[in-house]
Order: sequence, then structure tokens, then C-alpha cells
Amino acid sequence: MDLDAVKRSLELDPDPSSSSSSSSPAAELPPSFYDAFVLHGLRIDAAEPRRVLCSLSVPPRLANSESYLHSGVIATLADVVGSAVFYSSGFPTSGVSLEISISYLDAAFINEEIEIEAKLLRVGKAVGVTSIEFRKKNTGKIIAQARHSKYLAVSSKL
Amino acid sequence: MDLDAVKRSLELDPDPSSSSSSSSPAAELPPSFYDAFVLHGLRIDAAEPRRVLCSLSVPPRLANSESYLHSGVIATLADVVGSAVFYSSGFPTSGVSLEISISYLDAAFINEEIEIEAKLLRVGKAVGVTSIEFRKKNTGKIIAQARHSKYLAVSSKL
Amino acid sequence: MDLDAVKRSLELDPDPSSSSSSSSPAAELPPSFYDAFVLHGLRIDAAEPRRVLCSLSVPPRLANSESYLHSGVIATLADVVGSAVFYSSGFPTSGVSLEISISYLDAAFINEEIEIEAKLLRVGKAVGVTSIEFRKKNTGKIIAQARHSKYLAVSSKL
Amino acid sequence: MDLDAVKRSLELDPDPSSSSSSSSPAAELPPSFYDAFVLHGLRIDAAEPRRVLCSLSVPPRLANSESYLHSGVIATLADVVGSAVFYSSGFPTSGVSLEISISYLDAAFINEEIEIEAKLLRVGKAVGVTSIEFRKKNTGKIIAQARHSKYLAVSSKL
Repeated sequence: MDLDAVKRSLELDPDPSSSSSSSSPAAELPPSFYDAFVLHGLRIDAAEPRRVLCSLSVPPRLANSESYLHSGVIATLADVVGSAVFYSSGFPTSGVSLEISISYLDAAFINEEIEIEAKLLRVGKAVGVTSIEFRKKNTGKIIAQARHSKYLAVSSKL
Repeated sequence: MDLDAVKRSLELDPDPSSSSSSSSPAAELPPSFYDAFVLHGLRIDAAEPRRVLCSLSVPPRLANSESYLHSGVIATLADVVGSAVFYSSGFPTSGVSLEISISYLDAAFINEEIEIEAKLLRVGKAVGVTSIEFRKKNTGKIIAQARHSKYLAVSSKL
Repeated sequence: MDLDAVKRSLELDPDPSSSSSSSSPAAELPPSFYDAFVLHGLRIDAAEPRRVLCSLSVPPRLANSESYLHSGVIATLADVVGSAVFYSSGFPTSGVSLEISISYLDAAFINEEIEIEAKLLRVGKAVGVTSIEFRKKNTGKIIAQARHSKYLAVSSKL
Repeated sequence: MDLDAVKRSLELDPDPSSSSSSSSPAAELPPSFYDAFVLHGLRIDAAEPRRVLCSLSVPPRLANSESYLHSGVIATLADVVGSAVFYSSGFPTSGVSLEISISYLDAAFINEEIEIEAKLLRVGKAVGVTSIEFRKKNTGKIIAQARHSKYLAVSSKL
């Protein structure tokens, strides 16, 4: 087993005598900065009942080490844009996440223009489900497809 | 439909005359900063063949607006810690993501101690699958459970 | 704990002295009968590259005890109709299942007319992914949405 | 495109002049026969709060054309054994299916002894989630791993 490879894959410093990790700019960031960090640069192209369409030019900060959009960012965008459909459909809340599932189909490289379309598949008193598709803007080729289910009756207990 | 609610949910400035979004600190961050941003503070407690155990005190920067660990961060940690199991099992690569699915079961609040355990469910020449469980450290209560499948023969075409 | 309720839910005879289970017609059925059992009555409405459309009048034999189409049958149809898209797209095989995920959105009752549309989302040398949607024929309302990923290079080892 | 291959994959008669499909034994089976058809032969080895363990010798009737347990049957068993955990945990109902996701990891051939273990991951007033693992009995090797989420407050509207 290659512990250094494990450490490198987890962005940990293989050499603990180095002080680099304690000086990470990540440590300095404000509370709940995550959404702002991921969503900065996202544009809303359409927001209507049951549908939200956004677009994004893949920013360098959200790429993985292979220079394409990080799987975790795609999951985050599926969560956030999928949740926005509840607001665009007139609901006062988007609830809390129950399940998310994503198929990764193609890579979106730095500076590529992509679009993200979220649709409301169903909504009831307690549970709502959205589908979210990521596509390359110039070819329409699908980058990822996700489904997200949310619990909406948040005031009562899950 | 409440367009401002959609915009707020996507962290966009409801008042476009304001210049706040262009001055976001997110715009200033270095390429591929995302992994470092999420993983800072993660500790490896065990790394052995077929298993990696990490722990984390939920940092404020990764919380959502409700003050608990963001669903998108959980997806990212499932991706990254799940991938680390391939390295801890002696594989030279962790491949590319095919599928991720996550059930969200409980909230992990700011400063809560959690542990993340990834296990290798199967690995072949082409496809590997991991399971990843997020638990509260003091009670063992499950926060989320994920599965992640990866394509390993990356040099050849998917 | 109500063991009889568990047994009943698993279709086991709560009274083991009864001989009914050994005389079940299920025990008499021929090898690999399952596909024939589920698919009998399915009609192909369209089969073209990247798309297959089928329809079905929900038969009583495939209903659950609540008189609507069994979740397990929907999973089976997602598997089989999703796999048929590889043939309709000219591929010599549909490979083996890697992952299936399904959101159940509405009930399809006995004798309801439903349609099942499978689309090819991606196909490569090794992995193919389809989406499968189940809809009520008269209203278009979505009953279930699934994704199915398959390993196609079956001759080589997974 | 090979329409006959599509038809064959869907168990339809490529030659419509043949009368075989109309005489299928499937057409004669009683209402709601599906559960009995799949579950016949399943044994309960343990049923306790939060856990049910079953075993099964893979019967020929549930194999696919490659002589191993059909993916759709695994989905059905995940649904049904997962649901049984609610009864073994003392709940009066197992609700309705919201989501199921399954990773297929290995084949279970005809006459192989397998075990199916379902665990309750969480349960609340409205939503319950189970995990279900399929293993080979003699080696413990995992055949499939699933998660199943259910809506429990069925009397009220979803």
C-alpha cells in the first residue's frame, strides 16, 4: 500500500514536517462560504414553473487535477440547481436532501460552456423529485444526468 | 414564481446594480482549488487494503445556510475518500467516476466530529465500486451512505 | 416484533404445518421463465437508434397487493427495455448490469395503459448508460424514472 | 438496426404468425402472482429489530438467459426483503417505494446458495431507508448492494 498516494489523493501533505497545510487559504474562509465558492459565475437563463436553466463557463477553481469539472461540483450543482426548481415553481421551500444519484457521462473541461437544466418530476406534500441534466452548450452532448429527491415537510419531523 | 427566491437560492445577487458578485473572493482562487478547499482539515485514521477511515470536525466554511454539512460536500467527500481506497488497496489509479448515489440520513452540524469510512466492494480490470459511510463519531449514528463506481481502465477509451 | 407480519410480507406461510408452499405453481415453472413471465403482453411501438418505446396494459399478475405495478417489475422493465436500446442502436450485445437507480413517482394501477421510453445516454467501448421513463399513456404523467449502466466489453473481465 | 434482436431481447416472437405468445403460461397466472413467483423458496434466517437475514438457493426459474440471477429479481428481492425490516422493527407498515439504487457486483448462478441481509439505516415519521446486501453463502463475496427509501406516512398524501 502506498500511504503517500492515499495522502496525496486526499490533499494531505505527505511530509508532515512541512507547515503548508496549516497556512491553507481554505482555513481563512468565512462560514457557509461553500455555496458562494461553487456558484460564483453561474447564470440563470430561464426560471419558470417546473424548470430552471442555468449556464456556466467551467472555472479553473472548480476543476479537478485532470482539468475538468470535479464530480463533487457536479453533485453540488445538481443539488442547488435542482433545489431552485422548487422556488421557480412557487414553493416557499426546497426542503432537505433525501437522495441524490448521478451518472457521469463525459468530461467538461476548463472554460467549456455548459448548461444545466433542472426539471420538477413530481411534487407532493412531503416529497419532491427533480432531474438535472448537464450538457455541453455547443453540441448538446450530455455530461451528467442526476436525480434529486427532497423532503419538503421540513417543519414536521422527517 | 418568485425570481428573487430562485436567484437567492443560487447565490446570485437579486439586485444586479450591486457590484458585490464581481468582487467575490471565489473569483480570486487558484486553479483546481476545489479539492484543497473541501479537504482541508480531513484526517486519515486508517488506510489499509480495501478500507480507508477518515475523520473531520465539520468546518464552518463547508456548512450550508442551515449550519450543517452541505449535501454537495458529502458527495465530494464520498468521491474523494471512496477514490482513496483504490490507492490504499495498491492500485496505481482511482479511475474516473461513472456513478455516485447517496442517501442523506441525518445532519452533521458545524464543529461536530464525524468519521468517513470507505470500503472497496469490488474491483476488476475495468470497474471498481466503493461504499462510503458518514457517521457521527460520538454516537455512531449514520449521517449518509453512498456508493461510487469508477472506470479504472482509463488509458483505453471508456 | 411481529414475525408473522415479516413472514406474510415475504409471502411465507405463517403456518409451517400447511403444505401450501410446496404446491406453489411457482415451483413448476421452466428455467429462465422470469423474463417471459414479466414481459408477456409488452408491445414495441418504436425501435430506432438510441431509442425504444414500448407500451403495456398493466396485467393483474404483475400487481402488488395494493393493485398497482410492483416496484420490482418496474426495475425489471427498466433493465430489459433499457438493454433493448443497445440492440436498437446496432450493438451486438447489451452487456451486463453495473448499476440501476429508480425514482418511483406515481402508481400504475391494473389495466392502466403505460408507456416505457428508453434512451441511450452514452455508449463507449466499455460502458453504456440508458435512461428509462415510465408514463401514463393518457396523461403523460411520469410513473417512474430510471438510469441503468451496463458493462459492454463482456468478453474481457469486468 | 436489428429489429429481430430487439424483439428477441424483449421476449417477443420475431415471427408474429406463430401463435406461441398467446398461449404463454404467463397469461394464465392469478392476480398479484408476482410476489409469490419471485419469493417462493426464500427462507428467513433471522428477523430482529433493524435487521432481516434471508437465504435462497437460486432457482432456475429466476435466472436470466445467461443462467444467473436476473437483475430484476435482485431489485425485487431488495424491495421486498428491505420492506420486511420495517415489520421486523415493529412498524405496522413498510410504506411505498420512493427510490431504489443497486450496484451489481458479481453473478449468482443457478443453485448457488446466497444470503440477503437487510438493515434499517434510518426511520422517521415520514421516510425510512434500508440497505440490502446480497452475498454468496460459502465465500461471503458480495453479489449486489442496494439502498431502498420508502415513504411511511402513506395514509396522508405523498
